[in-house]
Amino acid sequence: MGYDRAEVRAVLDAVRAEGRTALTALEGKLLCDAYGIATPAEDLATSADEAISRAVDMGLPVVLKIVSPDILHKTEAGGVLVGLDSPHEVRLGYERIVAAARAHDPDARILGVQVQRMVPAGQEVIIGATTDPTFGKVIAFGLGGVLVEVLKDVTFRLAPATGEEAASMLDDIAAAEVLRGARGAEPIDREALAGMIQRVSDLVADFPEIAELDLNPVFATADGAVAADVRVLLAEDAPQEVPRYTAEEILAVMNRLMKPRSVAVIGASNEAGKIGNSVMRNLIDGGYAGEIHPINPKADEICGRKAYRSIADVPGEVDVAVFTIPAKFVPTALEEVGAKKVPAAVLIPSGFAETGNHELQEQVVEIARRRGVRLLGPNIYGYYYTPEDLCATFCTPYDVKGGVALSSQSGGIGMAILGFSRTSKMGVSAIVGLGNKSDLDEDDLLTFFGQDDNTRCVAMHLEDLKDGRAFVAAAREVTRKKPIIVLKAGRTSLGARAASSHTGALAGDDKVYDDILRQAGVIRAPGLNDMLEYAHALPTLPTPKGENVVIITGAGGSGVLLSDACVDAGLSLMDIPPDLDEAFRRFIPPFGAAGNPIDITGGEPPSTYEATVRLGLTDPRIHALILGYWHTIVTPPMVFAELIARVVADARAQGIDKPVVASLAGDTEVEQASEYLFDHGVPAYPYTTEKPVAVLGAKYRWARAAGLLPR
Amino acid sequence: MGYDRAEVRAVLDAVRAEGRTALTALEGKLLCDAYGIATPAEDLATSADEAISRAVDMGLPVVLKIVSPDILHKTEAGGVLVGLDSPHEVRLGYERIVAAARAHDPDARILGVQVQRMVPAGQEVIIGATTDPTFGKVIAFGLGGVLVEVLKDVTFRLAPATGEEAASMLDDIAAAEVLRGARGAEPIDREALAGMIQRVSDLVADFPEIAELDLNPVFATADGAVAADVRVLLAEDAPQEVPRYTAEEILAVMNRLMKPRSVAVIGASNEAGKIGNSVMRNLIDGGYAGEIHPINPKADEICGRKAYRSIADVPGEVDVAVFTIPAKFVPTALEEVGAKKVPAAVLIPSGFAETGNHELQEQVVEIARRRGVRLLGPNIYGYYYTPEDLCATFCTPYDVKGGVALSSQSGGIGMAILGFSRTSKMGVSAIVGLGNKSDLDEDDLLTFFGQDDNTRCVAMHLEDLKDGRAFVAAAREVTRKKPIIVLKAGRTSLGARAASSHTGALAGDDKVYDDILRQAGVIRAPGLNDMLEYAHALPTLPTPKGENVVIITGAGGSGVLLSDACVDAGLSLMDIPPDLDEAFRRFIPPFGAAGNPIDITGGEPPSTYEATVRLGLTDPRIHALILGYWHTIVTPPMVFAELIARVVADARAQGIDKPVVASLAGDTEVEQASEYLFDHGVPAYPYTTEKPVAVLGAKYRWARAAGLLPR
Repeated sequence: MGYDRAEVRAVLDAVRAEGRTALTALEGKLLCDAYGIATPAEDLATSADEAISRAVDMGLPVVLKIVSPDILHKTEAGGVLVGLDSPHEVRLGYERIVAAARAHDPDARILGVQVQRMVPAGQEVIIGATTDPTFGKVIAFGLGGVLVEVLKDVTFRLAPATGEEAASMLDDIAAAEVLRGARGAEPIDREALAGMIQRVSDLVADFPEIAELDLNPVFATADGAVAADVRVLLAEDAPQEVPRYTAEEILAVMNRLMKPRSVAVIGASNEAGKIGNSVMRNLIDGGYAGEIHPINPKADEICGRKAYRSIADVPGEVDVAVFTIPAKFVPTALEEVGAKKVPAAVLIPSGFAETGNHELQEQVVEIARRRGVRLLGPNIYGYYYTPEDLCATFCTPYDVKGGVALSSQSGGIGMAILGFSRTSKMGVSAIVGLGNKSDLDEDDLLTFFGQDDNTRCVAMHLEDLKDGRAFVAAAREVTRKKPIIVLKAGRTSLGARAASSHTGALAGDDKVYDDILRQAGVIRAPGLNDMLEYAHALPTLPTPKGENVVIITGAGGSGVLLSDACVDAGLSLMDIPPDLDEAFRRFIPPFGAAGNPIDITGGEPPSTYEATVRLGLTDPRIHALILGYWHTIVTPPMVFAELIARVVADARAQGIDKPVVASLAGDTEVEQASEYLFDHGVPAYPYTTEKPVAVLGAKYRWARAAGLLPR
Repeated sequence: MGYDRAEVRAVLDAVRAEGRTALTALEGKLLCDAYGIATPAEDLATSADEAISRAVDMGLPVVLKIVSPDILHKTEAGGVLVGLDSPHEVRLGYERIVAAARAHDPDARILGVQVQRMVPAGQEVIIGATTDPTFGKVIAFGLGGVLVEVLKDVTFRLAPATGEEAASMLDDIAAAEVLRGARGAEPIDREALAGMIQRVSDLVADFPEIAELDLNPVFATADGAVAADVRVLLAEDAPQEVPRYTAEEILAVMNRLMKPRSVAVIGASNEAGKIGNSVMRNLIDGGYAGEIHPINPKADEICGRKAYRSIADVPGEVDVAVFTIPAKFVPTALEEVGAKKVPAAVLIPSGFAETGNHELQEQVVEIARRRGVRLLGPNIYGYYYTPEDLCATFCTPYDVKGGVALSSQSGGIGMAILGFSRTSKMGVSAIVGLGNKSDLDEDDLLTFFGQDDNTRCVAMHLEDLKDGRAFVAAAREVTRKKPIIVLKAGRTSLGARAASSHTGALAGDDKVYDDILRQAGVIRAPGLNDMLEYAHALPTLPTPKGENVVIITGAGGSGVLLSDACVDAGLSLMDIPPDLDEAFRRFIPPFGAAGNPIDITGGEPPSTYEATVRLGLTDPRIHALILGYWHTIVTPPMVFAELIARVVADARAQGIDKPVVASLAGDTEVEQASEYLFDHGVPAYPYTTEKPVAVLGAKYRWARAAGLLPR
């Protein structure tokens, strides 16, 4: 698009030169003009004839406003007239306005009358931009007026936004239907509105010093969109630069961190109960095959390994230094680690920023930057990478290998991850503590896990993002290949943020995170247990190839609840075509219900489950199955489980790999049956109709975001 | 309020006499006038002078409309003028309108000009009434215009509504703030609006033949509310009467059903695998101490009990007849049961309405009504009542006695209830299958459980209600004393319902159930697992005495997630006063965070948990505690569990009984610790921050609904 950047530069420089941060209405209009953002036409007239000519040129009706540096309150001075819709009215208006101004203040200098085109009434919307502490420049869109303020029905995107992203915002508000012409109204001009959003996003991206911008209201009609009011605020300070690394730089250190040939333990100890002992024991007991070098000035041997007084004494290269010494000793030891050219330091100790000791943390970060050492932590439990049998943590070893990589910002959540993994036998590639995130953070992990063949799904607990842009960039890459699940804590605590613009005030809650993470293709988990369940099930489930979900249930009651859950999870129950309906009916009792859910009824033998599930798997129009099992004597839980596992395995052997999940209602034997099914590739859950559908829904959300499903 | 019922009666009779169901605008206005529902003032004038006098009387500005039986399209005939705001304009208008009408059709009979007061611009709202298939007459309120249609921001109540209920509707829409004067606008006249809602609710309650009524739009201003348009539709058919019983009648039969002295099993059998055998075995093995009479024409003894050929042969009174025979034999056997004056029949067999055999079910219901037998079922697993060791079911016995009574409409859900109960050792008073609900239903169970001292909480799975009014009446009684949890299946499947009014269309989803169940004080569970978890935890939790909730956590990360969960659950984190903050600070490390959550930090010994939790329990300003535990070597899971159990028991011994829940993050030992805590009165859960807060939130919802918390 043709933007006049020089004009904007000139306006902003002039504003800065005057020591202001708020732009006048006229300056705001100049910015809009430079970026092709439509505002009402306006012009100065110094005579009634000129006013008529201007008015006819821009189109009637018009507004007239007195222009005088001596008249501040135009309305009080009788200096504003609206809705003039004929040349005659404009002439009378011009004369009346000038006379009123003279009467109001005989000494006022009158420069003329501003002729402004009346904005056509239309749907009021708001387009804005603000500077988010996590994501930087973001744009907002919502319906205007009371709606946006009371209901906070607004959506956000990173700026600059593509045309497609801008257009998607029109659909992403609850009241989207209004723009499509609800209640028989004419639909608004979507292209004009999306174009205006995109231009605003370009403007603030090109000029990051624009801290806040509101177009409020914008009037959208069937023929276009006009911003009736423009408000622009400049930033007081220049934005802080965040250090960025290339993917190659990140992978160079992450590969050595996750797949080290040798690990040094700074502060290794023989004394049980010490962290330096737990880490040594876990490295050894976990089966790590690389070199382990205990570092302790007071020992010759620790846990059967030769100990060194200093890392400087270790022969050969060291990939990772795990710190298990008190915080105050970290700086000196880190200098030595840096001197040894160790690329990665894992800082387990606490006593840094989380206890208020920001100075010590800054000192450590400074040493690391200067020495070229990347830091994990401080204030963490350590990390696991199971493909290397690496348990560099003070927790207990974990050895169920599998496709999920998990990270947590908090130690408590890390322990919950470990406990849940163990009890559910979740296959894990990595568990990483990020703690204070003084250096390495989620986007570094994503860059590694994205290309790591041992990882098929990433799940992250986070409380904040140091650099939201870097995270989004990394996530967009990774989600094309594998799902990312995020549990964002502090959803509800951002609360009121001091904001001087409408958009800023609307951005003061979790909505910015929510919209932007979703745009990045991330699956957001509503709670801790959901994150864990998604992580457990997603690598097990094959990717669906279409949206047609079918419920097959032995309990009508479960069928209804499973249908409810499908709506909640954004899944589409397939509208079963007549021939398929007929085919299902052949297997179920006459009073059973075909359609969807397919209710095979409660008293049926295993053969009915088998025939219907087999049909569901083989018919290519069906893309995913949700099974509802009802415990009966005729088909006991383990019979059901073994049967379903066999039918699913048969199908997979024939190259049919559809996601299948199951809800088991019955006595306690359904727990064992659920476990058996999960082990055989069918995520299954007792006493709940919600969980199986929620995990399938999460898989679908990812498949859609990754562009793997036809739209 | 002074209502002119005779006037309404006369209008409706006249409409019926003409064979219409839709009222004209004038007839609608007459109804409004009769019930004091404000509509714009209007009157007929037959001269310009008369028009001026009418206009001045009712207040300017006015609208003028030609009145002629020969002019159908007034606007086309130039017969409508709006916004006349002086006597002079009214005079000119009158003359212009009459002239235009004459010009349009010289032969038209002109009866005069209608003078109507212009409705003052204000906030557009909608007030409506419709006839819900479950709840009968309901009233609706929402903001008008596009908002209510697109966002469905509308709320419902049973009609008639009390003044308090009507007023509560103004607060119960998402956009409630708009009515309070958002964006500096003047607040609307709440009393006038609530009054109008109440009058509408009285009107439709007094005249049930009014099927649908829309006041749309109503203009609400700071000075009142005026209904600008009225639409009324009458019902085609008279509503069906539902049989109702008094509480005494219900209790008479329910007491004999739940606490029988003798039970007959119709179709008892010695053959393993038969339902008639399972029921016999379960009655005996469950330990039921009353008489058990097997009925089977072909046996002398069944399961060691004397068998009878017919129930007629059983000596003495029989309280319950459990049917375990095929559906087709039920009518004959039920006649015999009726002749024996057995008050309650439990119909286990399927093969009735659920398989399409409505006729057989109607036949059975007819016999039961005629014979004075109340029916449970058909198509059920039976029922349990543990205080009597009664397992009249074909499932396995259940013997963990406790305070929860559960019911399910579906057998599959019943089995899930049983399995969950067994695995979680949930203390149960009753589990009842309701199946087809041909007779006894949820409100009968509520009437019994409400007065049953063995029951402290009721949890019900339901797909529909036969008589929503009876349910609400029973629920309102019971919730004063004990919580009712409802899992309403089919939340999302009602879908589009054919509706001829705005209100009817808006009522076509789950919102009516949601609003009315909430008004009845019922706690609605979002899913099956939630219902089970609420049922498990609620009787364990004491009732809170105030809204001040405090989180005490060893893991900062859990604290953030627990706070998020509190917002989701509608809980209020206490704003800790300075002296209390100071008191907590004395126990926690200097870098720990007081405030709320209180973060005692991760490395703390048991004494820190003990001191802070003890303080939380003893300070009378705190009403409930949420604990976050982080697994460490310093405070292992079972140490934490035993410590908390002891501290809570100490407090209870001193008469301090506050709800305490816990989230345990850690390795698998936290599972045992959670179980221990639950057994000791502290609902505790591993690997989740959501569940403990959700169950506490459910307890609070009930306490508020029961009026047990100060507002």
